[in-house]
Amino acid sequence: MTASLLKMYEFAAADPQVRFSPHCWKTRMAVAHKGLEAYRIAWRFTDKDEISFSGQGFVPVVVHGDQIVSDSWEIAHYLESRFPNKPSLFGNHESIAVSRFVNAWADRRLLPKIGRIILIDIYEHIDERDKDYFRSSREKRFGQTLEKASENPFSLLKELSKELAPLRSTLRSQDFIAGSTPKYADYCVFGMFMWARCISTTELLAEDNPIFQWRERLLDAFDGMGRNAPTAAAA
Amino acid sequence: MTASLLKMYEFAAADPQVRFSPHCWKTRMAVAHKGLEAYRIAWRFTDKDEISFSGQGFVPVVVHGDQIVSDSWEIAHYLESRFPNKPSLFGNHESIAVSRFVNAWADRRLLPKIGRIILIDIYEHIDERDKDYFRSSREKRFGQTLEKASENPFSLLKELSKELAPLRSTLRSQDFIAGSTPKYADYCVFGMFMWARCISTTELLAEDNPIFQWRERLLDAFDGMGRNAPTAAAA
Repeated sequence: MTASLLKMYEFAAADPQVRFSPHCWKTRMAVAHKGLEAYRIAWRFTDKDEISFSGQGFVPVVVHGDQIVSDSWEIAHYLESRFPNKPSLFGNHESIAVSRFVNAWADRRLLPKIGRIILIDIYEHIDERDKDYFRSSREKRFGQTLEKASENPFSLLKELSKELAPLRSTLRSQDFIAGSTPKYADYCVFGMFMWARCISTTELLAEDNPIFQWRERLLDAFDGMGRNAPTAAAA
Repeated sequence: MTASLLKMYEFAAADPQVRFSPHCWKTRMAVAHKGLEAYRIAWRFTDKDEISFSGQGFVPVVVHGDQIVSDSWEIAHYLESRFPNKPSLFGNHESIAVSRFVNAWADRRLLPKIGRIILIDIYEHIDERDKDYFRSSREKRFGQTLEKASENPFSLLKELSKELAPLRSTLRSQDFIAGSTPKYADYCVFGMFMWARCISTTELLAEDNPIFQWRERLLDAFDGMGRNAPTAAAA
């Protein structure tokens, strides 16, 4: 294996080309930012055994030579320290620290809200083998059925819009969360939008929203990697 | 006026020693971080004329020689560019960009939630002349009476706790939002907590919350500037 070849376990829908996990998208963007390629392996919830070598049960998992790294945040750090001469994912120490907050905001505030909006789309498009696990784990998390948790999409979109207020305000003043060019602070949020884009036809943003324009710029990044990614709707 | 003497208009309660505005606290911390002193002038909502020279009607307003700067975010930038050899408030360009998001998060998500919790405390402790303006502007903003907007404090505190999830998670991994030492990304959030501390006795955080410990560290910063600040309760 050459020094820059990465292997990445990535969550896949029933159609193995549809890779929609928000955390895997963070990692895909980070890998592309570093100018690297990853050999991407489709993985399902029920394939716990296939990544047990990583000592945990979630994707992304990245294998690089004899290094095994899980958790998208840890992977970003691994890439940053292992490829210091490639474009930086953060910028400097302070930016890493503040980007951790942005990442936590995406995970703790956006993910649950977007997740409710696309809940039924996810359920419909994941592999048959994954459906029982998905339904029971999510119904436990939300304390209600998938159908109940995702009812009233208009009110869920309105809640999401309120949640996005700080991002909207930030992107009125600058092109990217990280400033004039995108970095990991952008990718960790963009992953949430790719999650929705790949699995659902629900539009989360209005065209006049600065976040819409920011998403457009990131969809075009790395030769349109996000824009050209297979979606469940097109499948 | 010496090169480093600043004049700062700061919102004051009925007791002019009680200075509780969240935005003014951001600026106070930024001024202290730069090792500067400011001559702080008590200002009330009804004193619009006194700051009309700034071309707008809100505090903080900072006067430095012939420079007049309003808006706490603009003031932080002014201080950073005017005093480049003093400790940096951001770190580098990327950190400024990402800190803008943290600042927007504090303003758009924390401020309205904390504001509801301390609404009646604010109303009780502001100057008599300010009360009509405060009641009418806030009741318009919330679409209900002050009393109605702030009822059910237990549920408001629970909502705030959810809102704070990304900060809690971040501070489990690092001492400050900006990393190992505090910077403006910390002060813009800390300002929200000083607002509550100076005007209300309601405790927003449990002691075992990592945010509580972070707030303790910032209360101790600059010789206990925050900890020793006059509060309405003590007045």
